[in-house]
Amino acid sequence: MPQQPASVYLRHGQTPFFRLPVVDFAAAGPAAYAGADAIVIGVPWDASVTYRPGARFAPYELRRVSAMVQTYHPGHGLDVFTTLDARDGGNVAFPPFNAEITRALIEQEIGHVVAAGAIPFVVGGDHSIALPVMRALAAAHGPLAVVHVDAHLDTSTAEVWSEPYHHGTPFRHAIEQGLVARGALHQVGIRATWGGADEGDLAHEHGGVVYSVDRLADEGVAAVANAIYSAVGDQPVYISFDVDGVDPAFAPGTGTPVPGGLSSREALRLLRELRGIQLVGMDLVEIAPALDHADITLHLGAHVLFEGLALAAVRKRDRDAADE
Amino acid sequence: MPQQPASVYLRHGQTPFFRLPVVDFAAAGPAAYAGADAIVIGVPWDASVTYRPGARFAPYELRRVSAMVQTYHPGHGLDVFTTLDARDGGNVAFPPFNAEITRALIEQEIGHVVAAGAIPFVVGGDHSIALPVMRALAAAHGPLAVVHVDAHLDTSTAEVWSEPYHHGTPFRHAIEQGLVARGALHQVGIRATWGGADEGDLAHEHGGVVYSVDRLADEGVAAVANAIYSAVGDQPVYISFDVDGVDPAFAPGTGTPVPGGLSSREALRLLRELRGIQLVGMDLVEIAPALDHADITLHLGAHVLFEGLALAAVRKRDRDAADE
Amino acid sequence: MPQQPASVYLRHGQTPFFRLPVVDFAAAGPAAYAGADAIVIGVPWDASVTYRPGARFAPYELRRVSAMVQTYHPGHGLDVFTTLDARDGGNVAFPPFNAEITRALIEQEIGHVVAAGAIPFVVGGDHSIALPVMRALAAAHGPLAVVHVDAHLDTSTAEVWSEPYHHGTPFRHAIEQGLVARGALHQVGIRATWGGADEGDLAHEHGGVVYSVDRLADEGVAAVANAIYSAVGDQPVYISFDVDGVDPAFAPGTGTPVPGGLSSREALRLLRELRGIQLVGMDLVEIAPALDHADITLHLGAHVLFEGLALAAVRKRDRDAADE
Amino acid sequence: MPQQPASVYLRHGQTPFFRLPVVDFAAAGPAAYAGADAIVIGVPWDASVTYRPGARFAPYELRRVSAMVQTYHPGHGLDVFTTLDARDGGNVAFPPFNAEITRALIEQEIGHVVAAGAIPFVVGGDHSIALPVMRALAAAHGPLAVVHVDAHLDTSTAEVWSEPYHHGTPFRHAIEQGLVARGALHQVGIRATWGGADEGDLAHEHGGVVYSVDRLADEGVAAVANAIYSAVGDQPVYISFDVDGVDPAFAPGTGTPVPGGLSSREALRLLRELRGIQLVGMDLVEIAPALDHADITLHLGAHVLFEGLALAAVRKRDRDAADE
Amino acid sequence: MPQQPASVYLRHGQTPFFRLPVVDFAAAGPAAYAGADAIVIGVPWDASVTYRPGARFAPYELRRVSAMVQTYHPGHGLDVFTTLDARDGGNVAFPPFNAEITRALIEQEIGHVVAAGAIPFVVGGDHSIALPVMRALAAAHGPLAVVHVDAHLDTSTAEVWSEPYHHGTPFRHAIEQGLVARGALHQVGIRATWGGADEGDLAHEHGGVVYSVDRLADEGVAAVANAIYSAVGDQPVYISFDVDGVDPAFAPGTGTPVPGGLSSREALRLLRELRGIQLVGMDLVEIAPALDHADITLHLGAHVLFEGLALAAVRKRDRDAADE
Amino acid sequence: MPQQPASVYLRHGQTPFFRLPVVDFAAAGPAAYAGADAIVIGVPWDASVTYRPGARFAPYELRRVSAMVQTYHPGHGLDVFTTLDARDGGNVAFPPFNAEITRALIEQEIGHVVAAGAIPFVVGGDHSIALPVMRALAAAHGPLAVVHVDAHLDTSTAEVWSEPYHHGTPFRHAIEQGLVARGALHQVGIRATWGGADEGDLAHEHGGVVYSVDRLADEGVAAVANAIYSAVGDQPVYISFDVDGVDPAFAPGTGTPVPGGLSSREALRLLRELRGIQLVGMDLVEIAPALDHADITLHLGAHVLFEGLALAAVRKRDRDAADE
Repeated sequence: MPQQPASVYLRHGQTPFFRLPVVDFAAAGPAAYAGADAIVIGVPWDASVTYRPGARFAPYELRRVSAMVQTYHPGHGLDVFTTLDARDGGNVAFPPFNAEITRALIEQEIGHVVAAGAIPFVVGGDHSIALPVMRALAAAHGPLAVVHVDAHLDTSTAEVWSEPYHHGTPFRHAIEQGLVARGALHQVGIRATWGGADEGDLAHEHGGVVYSVDRLADEGVAAVANAIYSAVGDQPVYISFDVDGVDPAFAPGTGTPVPGGLSSREALRLLRELRGIQLVGMDLVEIAPALDHADITLHLGAHVLFEGLALAAVRKRDRDAADE
Repeated sequence: MPQQPASVYLRHGQTPFFRLPVVDFAAAGPAAYAGADAIVIGVPWDASVTYRPGARFAPYELRRVSAMVQTYHPGHGLDVFTTLDARDGGNVAFPPFNAEITRALIEQEIGHVVAAGAIPFVVGGDHSIALPVMRALAAAHGPLAVVHVDAHLDTSTAEVWSEPYHHGTPFRHAIEQGLVARGALHQVGIRATWGGADEGDLAHEHGGVVYSVDRLADEGVAAVANAIYSAVGDQPVYISFDVDGVDPAFAPGTGTPVPGGLSSREALRLLRELRGIQLVGMDLVEIAPALDHADITLHLGAHVLFEGLALAAVRKRDRDAADE
Repeated sequence: MPQQPASVYLRHGQTPFFRLPVVDFAAAGPAAYAGADAIVIGVPWDASVTYRPGARFAPYELRRVSAMVQTYHPGHGLDVFTTLDARDGGNVAFPPFNAEITRALIEQEIGHVVAAGAIPFVVGGDHSIALPVMRALAAAHGPLAVVHVDAHLDTSTAEVWSEPYHHGTPFRHAIEQGLVARGALHQVGIRATWGGADEGDLAHEHGGVVYSVDRLADEGVAAVANAIYSAVGDQPVYISFDVDGVDPAFAPGTGTPVPGGLSSREALRLLRELRGIQLVGMDLVEIAPALDHADITLHLGAHVLFEGLALAAVRKRDRDAADE
Repeated sequence: MPQQPASVYLRHGQTPFFRLPVVDFAAAGPAAYAGADAIVIGVPWDASVTYRPGARFAPYELRRVSAMVQTYHPGHGLDVFTTLDARDGGNVAFPPFNAEITRALIEQEIGHVVAAGAIPFVVGGDHSIALPVMRALAAAHGPLAVVHVDAHLDTSTAEVWSEPYHHGTPFRHAIEQGLVARGALHQVGIRATWGGADEGDLAHEHGGVVYSVDRLADEGVAAVANAIYSAVGDQPVYISFDVDGVDPAFAPGTGTPVPGGLSSREALRLLRELRGIQLVGMDLVEIAPALDHADITLHLGAHVLFEGLALAAVRKRDRDAADE
Repeated sequence: MPQQPASVYLRHGQTPFFRLPVVDFAAAGPAAYAGADAIVIGVPWDASVTYRPGARFAPYELRRVSAMVQTYHPGHGLDVFTTLDARDGGNVAFPPFNAEITRALIEQEIGHVVAAGAIPFVVGGDHSIALPVMRALAAAHGPLAVVHVDAHLDTSTAEVWSEPYHHGTPFRHAIEQGLVARGALHQVGIRATWGGADEGDLAHEHGGVVYSVDRLADEGVAAVANAIYSAVGDQPVYISFDVDGVDPAFAPGTGTPVPGGLSSREALRLLRELRGIQLVGMDLVEIAPALDHADITLHLGAHVLFEGLALAAVRKRDRDAADE
Repeated sequence: MPQQPASVYLRHGQTPFFRLPVVDFAAAGPAAYAGADAIVIGVPWDASVTYRPGARFAPYELRRVSAMVQTYHPGHGLDVFTTLDARDGGNVAFPPFNAEITRALIEQEIGHVVAAGAIPFVVGGDHSIALPVMRALAAAHGPLAVVHVDAHLDTSTAEVWSEPYHHGTPFRHAIEQGLVARGALHQVGIRATWGGADEGDLAHEHGGVVYSVDRLADEGVAAVANAIYSAVGDQPVYISFDVDGVDPAFAPGTGTPVPGGLSSREALRLLRELRGIQLVGMDLVEIAPALDHADITLHLGAHVLFEGLALAAVRKRDRDAADE
């Protein structure tokens, strides 16, 4: 199901992700995902943030802006949505004031996607949604390699905010729950100061690698991407992309900005250079449209998501070619 | 077809006007409109403005914001979308750089709506789109009574901008083409200064009445609405609502703002007080989202449109009651 | 404790509410409030909103902007902070992700203020915080008369959002818990459309009066204020001021704007005209600074709060005069 | 010298006030103003503000926006710039960090305009510039009647900010220097709270009248304008228009906003209703473009200035008619 | 004619490009351009965009902001406007709704500049204006070498938008019309995804070179500039600078932003490093001021234009030196 | 005195710099600074700017935003505020309209800080405040090495603006007054064009080094930092950080932006790489919050200030370690 032509998009007045067909598991059951390679799905939840909220609106606004992305990827030399059967899976439905039930519903919903053999591309919402997504993926694929783009380690402890589950803790839980393969946590763009000297210990002891922004500057993003590529090999990879990994100049529309991050160019290239990995899932989180200007964070987000989809398309093309 | 519950809206991630069902005449043919009372339809055209453009994005953004309007109208005592079978008809499709063909396509498309017995609610786009809408309506209903909310008379001559058809001329053409019944042009909120002493002559000679903002202030909007209500009687009425009729404080998101206009409260009440009229069509034009702040112009626009739909619902309810 | 001179404010670089002295009950115990007439206290909680969040930042920003309000009230002819011993009580501390505990802590904290004989002026945060404030007040004063400025009735049922306590339900609970005296709920500015025909029943059956914006327009705000003033007599009065009662043109910085509301002039006059009432508490809620422009919502908020404090000052002056 | 047609304006790329011819006294000497009825002149000075600066840019931005005002005034029934020989006199030149010299240069420059028999329309800048303008006018006309639109009395004492001359004191000096005729200070829109009980004494003792916003609401702006009109009779009148007299909703682009002010509609009508007065000079001050949104304050400012120019045009037309 | 001192600029209140003298060919005929080395000229046309409009206002706003650029270029060691006789040529006049006539008028007007021996620096407007500029230049100089900074190839076919001439096609026409020398199209910053696999074929077959952002990152902008410099040799060079070649972080004020572009530093250095080329014309297009923030896109635009003018100054200085 | 925990910050509702304890020399005398290592102090003065004002509000807004910076610096491996006794010293008090007295008061106040053995970290305000700070420091330490981050040389002459002391001249005076050691002026990020060929002479003749943005790009910021580090050796160092040294994309909230500057990443690393220097004072100037977007300039400013404080902490830790 290729992207619909612009005329159809204009005609319907609706704006699915990348003008893709919309399917609804709740209404159609397993048929909704049957045959799909990728499901782009929204999770408009932002009640787990510690500073400025607003990411709940990202799925709606990203749909609108993503309509502007054309689908032939000149770098990879393929039309992403001709290669890949991708669909807009709507949003995960959840009770707006209950984090626990919401996490369970996300896990269940992404479980359906995974069960259908499709790769979930999940648009948050805040970063707390990554945990149930990783749970659903790890249940199917085993412990995951994770490429985590962020300004923050996101391995805080429960004490900091009197609550174990929020947008600063998903990777603590993921590690503790065995969702992340040892030595397979690749954290890029980390630069926020810490609450204490031991803040990096958990990930470090799990064999995680932090690719600092200074390393990016010194070695170049391609070298960093190469290092990650080599490290993950053929592990199932989850990409967790917190938009605050990117510098606030390029991504002002986010709740907890930290200066000194990746440029848009670095962020997009990082993803492009990972081509060949076995991507099993991806999230894009923490875009807060009300804090954006001239949609620049949204345009970046749409391209980040597209690069993720392109990775899946490349993998499929190469696999199909190998099959022949 | 009542408004879908919020959960469905959240679920689909799509945002039709007022969460209404989406239909597509191009795909489904006459069945798309069969049985409908009202079709809300977008015309993302703004190439006919003389100052700041941007209204082409209003249909997309109004869909998103309109999802927040609940559907029981306490003033009229009815649920608008239970009473009225209203549908999102998508957008009129047109070639983006050809005004003449675009006008023809609008007229044709609205003609289909009218032919199906439904009332078109047309969301611009700039004010130039009102002319083909009125042409389609007058073809079915004969000359129309017009309630025209605006800061400008919109009866300029072709000489001003070397082009007869643009957003400053729809009512010149409408009068000259016989689309407006003599004595039935009611212009509310007019206050822009003029290019010359004769600028008001055409409408005046056609028996048009200008309800100035001073008159609104002195007599109150209810009295003005009453005067219009009495004047139109049972004529078929077209409401042409240029958002710049409202003061820029309430509607900053527009291209040619003029200070001193209606308040939101006056604008909404004006429409409410017209209950009972035979509304045959309505437009809402000149909302430029990029110039808006915190969506306040869009929220106003959604309520203006809703009040128009409510007028249609009241009429239907009363007519149905009379039938019993 | 009068307002500190601007030089001190400039000197310290800190910005307490209205440059008032800062006290801390947690640190100082009962001495913090001893002798105080009024405590201005923040509640940076906004996790109970149904649309756009952000009101958690209002207490910080209102402190900054309130420094600009000079303290002699020419209408009432008194210096508010010479007459009234008012203090900045800091913010209520709470766990950021637990609404139930937060409500309990608010109730407890406001209970301390009330116990000390001071009037609490509570700056939200979202409207859900009004419930525990009213609970603390009603525990001391019995059922309250309530002047409720809002665009919404705020008496929704739990079903709508699968949760009984959020910013759309405080008055449902207040009525059901006996916090509001029968016939003493005065709702001003209500204009949002409803989810169903019975949305107004609860308040109506409790003898509540809705003062619509049309009534405000027709009778004038002074007449409406007079009607409320007469009705409340010497009942203990709680003012609950949701900034979305005011039109979005005057108060764009809010999460659920509805066009057609009060002007700033009407809102401020409404409060001024209530002089003489027995004010026992007040909240100001739903200001979302990130959605504001040029601080206009914040400047309005600071003046609204000041008018509330002025009502307390007038009452004290008049009572003191009567005592002599 | 009528306004140039839009084509010329578009052609030159420059934006004089209202597309008027530009003259330069410094270069051309007395010939620059010879025969002129009105000179619109900028004073980009804002170093005398007590809160948010930025009004220095108003003359540049107002020129741009004023190009949109068409010149036939339907209310007065005349083409303002056909009736009136009005010219853009450029800006007053001054050393940017010396308030005393700047005031002297303003007085000198406006003196040239007055000497040429033209009416100065001065665009600030902050309100401190009004004092030298009034000095130049009173030197020629004797003590002036003043119509002062503002949120603030602007009669503060030197003690408040350790400096006698700033934007909060022009009318203190004007009264003390004998520039304002006894009983002829008409202050409209005043509503800021005061620093002390005696803040209004100076103007009051001079026979000044404050037209509060409540009075405007109760009697209507036309009645207030009438009262002023009757009071000034044929005195020479100076209009000092501080844009913060208007409510921040309509004029967010200003440094010291106070909620509760005039609407744009009231402000413009106030001026229109004064037709017939002997206007000898006018200022428009305190527009801070960087704080504006979508140019709405600037559009208001352009219309306020235009209404002032229209008053001069009406007076000239009527005088010319009387002469025949 | 050097740049006027700031005092004159402040005095006149007008803001020509870089405070240069204003000339008018329409009024003065050939004398307007006689002796000039460079004419900066505006084309406020944006009716040929496919997404967000608004670039029509760039010539006005760029004039204002350019007044801040001082004229001694420390890198090149010369005062640009002492070396170069540069003038503000006003705007091209055109009928606002007719693209075909507008293109013809641009070509004619630029033809006059070229005929006078001056280099045109053309400020759009959208990118469609580049075609008639190149036509006028190629008519005088023969096929041009082109340095094209952009996010997009701008060689789309007519089918995409049912219209051959718009802002996505100027280089298709330029190539097809023989305006671009074979092997002399240098496209920098290209990174948008494509509508189809063959989108780059036209330029590629014409010998064009695309300098991707990855190449910029890997080799550095100086190396890329060097490659271009060597390639163009002494060909007549046209620089077409679409501001969306720069990343949206640095240039948010544009209609079709694409993340991952040049930094401001790279863009300016690219131009500086081209010193010595035979620049015959330049455009700067697609700046949409209403989408800008804090004028940062405009400040960038002013510096980009200044670097272009500096290239012309360097060439003149060196040529003059060689002549001696 | 370590940073207070977030709960205290939330509790008090006040926002001292980095949640540090607030002290007041005017009230407490020398005890205020006794034992302190660093005093962060505001100077809300911006009356000495030549273009867009507004930096007077930076101290208030930076306090608010700095509360988000956690205090363990993972790069240096220490908790900054455990290592360093840092306090919020409030703001320097001054008469708002007198630059000369203000400079004297700044010098006096910073003199107290220096006398107490603490390092002043001064938050402007505009860059003119750097002169009195350097005077106070040089009085204690002798001529200073200066690391000056800026887009501008800031060595203009008095003639340019008819006034010797403003934000474009602090380093002219500093050199002429002997405050800067010969050969010890290190200017980073300079890139604005000049008013004349001799603009760089003063600093050059004093042995100053300009590290251009091209050098930064070619050599990398670490190499530049190293060069500075080696050059300053153990001289007492003053860091003067004008936020416009950073590119407007990263720091839009400033008055005189110049494209092409440092990235946030480079700016922060520059400071980090200077670890070991003998920092005796620092300023952070020219942040204009009203021109900022989504607080990104403020977040950058908070981190810049924190990196400066971290340099002081590193020095203290290493000195303490050496002492043992």
